[in-house]
Amino acid sequence: MGPGPITVDPRVLHAMSAQLVGQYDPFMTATMNEVMALYRGVFRTENEQTLLVDGTSRAGIEAALVSLLEPGDRVLVPVFGRFGHLLVEIAERCGAAVHTIEAEWGTVFTAEQIDEAMAQTRPKVLAVVQGDTSTTMCQPLADLGEIAHRHGALLYCDATASLGGNPFETDAWGLDVVTAGLQKCLGGPSGSAPITLSPAAVDVINARKHVEAGIATDSDRPRGARIASNYFDLAMVMDYWGPRRLNHHTEATSMLYAARECARLLLVEGIDDAVARHRLHGEAMLAGVRGLGLEVFGDTAHKMTNVVAVHIPDGIDGEAARTAMLEEFGIEIGTSFGPLAGRVWRIGTMGYNARHDAVLTTLAALEQVLRAGGAGVTAGGGVGAAREVYEEARA
Amino acid sequence: MGPGPITVDPRVLHAMSAQLVGQYDPFMTATMNEVMALYRGVFRTENEQTLLVDGTSRAGIEAALVSLLEPGDRVLVPVFGRFGHLLVEIAERCGAAVHTIEAEWGTVFTAEQIDEAMAQTRPKVLAVVQGDTSTTMCQPLADLGEIAHRHGALLYCDATASLGGNPFETDAWGLDVVTAGLQKCLGGPSGSAPITLSPAAVDVINARKHVEAGIATDSDRPRGARIASNYFDLAMVMDYWGPRRLNHHTEATSMLYAARECARLLLVEGIDDAVARHRLHGEAMLAGVRGLGLEVFGDTAHKMTNVVAVHIPDGIDGEAARTAMLEEFGIEIGTSFGPLAGRVWRIGTMGYNARHDAVLTTLAALEQVLRAGGAGVTAGGGVGAAREVYEEARA
Repeated sequence: MGPGPITVDPRVLHAMSAQLVGQYDPFMTATMNEVMALYRGVFRTENEQTLLVDGTSRAGIEAALVSLLEPGDRVLVPVFGRFGHLLVEIAERCGAAVHTIEAEWGTVFTAEQIDEAMAQTRPKVLAVVQGDTSTTMCQPLADLGEIAHRHGALLYCDATASLGGNPFETDAWGLDVVTAGLQKCLGGPSGSAPITLSPAAVDVINARKHVEAGIATDSDRPRGARIASNYFDLAMVMDYWGPRRLNHHTEATSMLYAARECARLLLVEGIDDAVARHRLHGEAMLAGVRGLGLEVFGDTAHKMTNVVAVHIPDGIDGEAARTAMLEEFGIEIGTSFGPLAGRVWRIGTMGYNARHDAVLTTLAALEQVLRAGGAGVTAGGGVGAAREVYEEARA
Repeated sequence: MGPGPITVDPRVLHAMSAQLVGQYDPFMTATMNEVMALYRGVFRTENEQTLLVDGTSRAGIEAALVSLLEPGDRVLVPVFGRFGHLLVEIAERCGAAVHTIEAEWGTVFTAEQIDEAMAQTRPKVLAVVQGDTSTTMCQPLADLGEIAHRHGALLYCDATASLGGNPFETDAWGLDVVTAGLQKCLGGPSGSAPITLSPAAVDVINARKHVEAGIATDSDRPRGARIASNYFDLAMVMDYWGPRRLNHHTEATSMLYAARECARLLLVEGIDDAVARHRLHGEAMLAGVRGLGLEVFGDTAHKMTNVVAVHIPDGIDGEAARTAMLEEFGIEIGTSFGPLAGRVWRIGTMGYNARHDAVLTTLAALEQVLRAGGAGVTAGGGVGAAREVYEEARA
């Protein structure tokens, strides 16, 4: 019940045990095409270029940024938690001129703040995290596409922690590039990074296409500044997923199967229903931790549905309590990073763990651990408050 | 029966369906430590820094090169096939000054040729492929560590296609960095890249360590030229796998389970026995294709055990024959790249496919397809020749 990676849906685990076929087997290429179509549904986009980067979520982030940004390009990153710092870090390594605005941990930005910073910095790319698990905050994105495009920029979003459990609209919100991972609300394992690219983003990237020696043909004349990574060169990755099927990496087939099953399960449930499920169990957990007398961290009006951060009560050893949760009850909860390390616990309700029994069991166990640690706690206060949320939802 | 990815060992598929635990769960960190120990056995090394890069084989290559090479550093790449070109390509994108020597496709280099080129170019890194599946050639490595070190260079090797099916000695041959993949002789899926680093290589990489903002502490003072990739920054990846457990990516746990099972199966079989198995079935396939009247490509004295390339006979449509093999018999064989595209077929006998029944079935099917395509072929010539190899081995 941590902030991810989380318990994987057993149907996804099962999907990964399917046998492999060759990388140009018609079944394989048809499966790749099917995955592209499924993730258009997940991202809510018409983008043709919707595919997987073979690596963890930060591989997706780096592929997006290194393919978009040339050395010297300006990028604006609104930072409201650890994963904003990660975007800065990756963009800097791309040689970009990185501008930041910072919000206090536990808050998000207004559209006006971002608009103003865009006017001042005039970047090529506005790069923002939707849900930053380090603070549990969910940055509103609906206005940012219009803002970015009005200032002549592309809008990139890291939706790893939020996608599938919080409202997300690639096309309606004007997002140009979005990357994600499977190990949060999608209920899968880490190791595959879905990505979608708007036609405008594709044009920017293809203007830098350099097909690698050994497979380039005479018509593959190099263009623009070569992308600084081979593995993350999305121009070549698109040629591998596209009709040309130009060999790049060898697609990680087991992870492809996992990604397919994650998307299939989400679309069968329905994205709106999946978001409602995350909201329900997130509200039950929020009420439950408050019912245990814990103080919630951050601006709950902008909290992600799928994770809550609570202040570790005075007198409780946070790490000892986490160990007791794991060793006595088999339940993992998380700590955080940077200014919040050792100050808060983060409890997730995401993907396969956004379940009634998982919420109540976690609250029941946490009550026992808090009591054993000497905290004042109302007997049944956590489970009772969560039950009320569930009863109201049924009414 | 292509040059990889190949049919995955069912025990590896099964291992991937195990449930995940949190990334700092004691079971998880113990499993990571176990994987490090297992791959020391696979690589035949005492290197402490033996771990996985979360991506396909070329992710491992790029992690090695981008972590070792600073812009302007000289690197020497002896190129004898497509994957030598890939090393050049990746090193160029690192900003390195890349020097090459080239061998005709189907041949390898003598130690003297490489020694001479080292003396002329005096690189920081000598980067070489062991087995290049594009040509099936296996470059002898035993003398290269001494040569590289005498010239003050580190020796990097891409052993993706060969490891586990051909003799390989990291420490005895003086290799500083080796990367591989699971999808060839190790019998696993693509998507995880085992890597091992000598203490000398670790020193070079740690001299460039920059812990990322958001998790760096005051004692993490940046050093040297920052590595141009965050995802492939092996200094940080080593801190994630090491006792500090400093968060980097979220380890791809299902692929970790796959990598563990691949190594476990290889070490239970015994590396020498696994190499002997690949040699036996490779010799049977070699005899078999000759028995079918096919001409073998390249210098068979330096062929990898686990793949053979044959010239497509005059009058046979190579792609139509590959399609018939797949559609009629469910057997995939490969074509090649660059100068060999459409000129040869490549037939693998590696990992789980290095089996008696797989060899004989492939030869029986190929005989039917060649005959249907109008090639002159001796009835039973392929299977018969392979049987003789097996009978001699039993004698």
